[in-house]
Amino acid sequence: MPESQPEAQPDGGRPTASGPLSSTDRTRHRRLREQGRADRAELMAVLAAGLIAHLGVLSDGSPMVVPTVYGFDDRHLYVHGSVASQSLAGDSLACVTVTLVDGLVLARSVFEHAVNYRSAVIYARPRIITDPQEKLTGLRLVSEHLAPGQWDYARQPSRKELAATALLALSLAEASVKIRTGPPDDGDTPDAALGLWAGELPLTTSWQHPVPDPALPPGVDIPAHISARIGLSAY
Amino acid sequence: MPESQPEAQPDGGRPTASGPLSSTDRTRHRRLREQGRADRAELMAVLAAGLIAHLGVLSDGSPMVVPTVYGFDDRHLYVHGSVASQSLAGDSLACVTVTLVDGLVLARSVFEHAVNYRSAVIYARPRIITDPQEKLTGLRLVSEHLAPGQWDYARQPSRKELAATALLALSLAEASVKIRTGPPDDGDTPDAALGLWAGELPLTTSWQHPVPDPALPPGVDIPAHISARIGLSAY
Repeated sequence: MPESQPEAQPDGGRPTASGPLSSTDRTRHRRLREQGRADRAELMAVLAAGLIAHLGVLSDGSPMVVPTVYGFDDRHLYVHGSVASQSLAGDSLACVTVTLVDGLVLARSVFEHAVNYRSAVIYARPRIITDPQEKLTGLRLVSEHLAPGQWDYARQPSRKELAATALLALSLAEASVKIRTGPPDDGDTPDAALGLWAGELPLTTSWQHPVPDPALPPGVDIPAHISARIGLSAY
Repeated sequence: MPESQPEAQPDGGRPTASGPLSSTDRTRHRRLREQGRADRAELMAVLAAGLIAHLGVLSDGSPMVVPTVYGFDDRHLYVHGSVASQSLAGDSLACVTVTLVDGLVLARSVFEHAVNYRSAVIYARPRIITDPQEKLTGLRLVSEHLAPGQWDYARQPSRKELAATALLALSLAEASVKIRTGPPDDGDTPDAALGLWAGELPLTTSWQHPVPDPALPPGVDIPAHISARIGLSAY
């Protein structure tokens, strides 16, 4: 089903930034249910924190998983689709997953080891955006999500560049979010008597000092919207 | 095709840690060819650097993309497959992608913006490991990849835990690697005259100070194999 008309939602309505997430059979949490989140705000928070998504599409009948940049608004995810759009067959369903790894969970037993993470999984039928104005809006969301301030600072796309860019829109109506935080789960088991250290090994991802293009002439300062990110956590 | 016998390789041989990567039609680089890498050692390097993979399988005829931990040797990738193994239908093909984001490429035009990254894409028919010894070997590879030293430090899996763990093996015979490094590509275009700053905004991911489980009694020191990672880049 192309998304040129508003899609039918599982609950008959449209997705909004808050309220319950979908609970179709696909997005029902099949295991580790305590890690499942049901609020749409959690989906928005994971999408806001992530940098890239993994887009899964069918290619000759088999899954192909492509890393891609993305942007989003309350209703849609926008992804660069150069490879994927070649493989998109009609109204076939795609799956987009955004995952942030927050650390390792080091338990007393190998079996209880885990990863602290946040992930969002979205199922939708990608629509290739053809309208130039909609494409511009979607590209701006992608650009501003990754590099806030660059859309207004850099030269914006020409008509030719716009035509050469493939952008896909996917509804956010059907999604699931999983989050794991905190210490290992075996602190109250017989394994606690082993006397082993257990806890979390956190992982942080942060922006470093910008590296100027060697082709840059001297005297061009790093703009404030870029230098402001130095040392900040990316997620 | 289950992998219980050695798989037929595209070149008739078996994958090894060095030498050319496969060049089946699927793994032929369709775009951005300058970013494609053809040496198997590049695949091993990306797998060694990554922490999690995104596993794409068919679920009711549509792609499902699941984040998962992994380990590997010269010939196989091993992934936790609790969700995916429920969906694995016979000999259907899966796609596993490992992506590392190294930074943003900030160009003079929005169109030339890019991401510096390393990614590996593997196509294989997952085999559910049933042999306990093979499962133990595979799980050790997964565990030591994520948390080196923990396999020998923590309590190893019991027979019951081993039975409760789903592990998949995927051949590394058919894979492709893409890497982008360096400054933006528009330093020698008319856009250079715009006088805008351009360059790379690097991103680093590093291990932080371990957080002890609140259930831990006092006096249990952080073992050296864990504290040695503090401040180190994860990739």
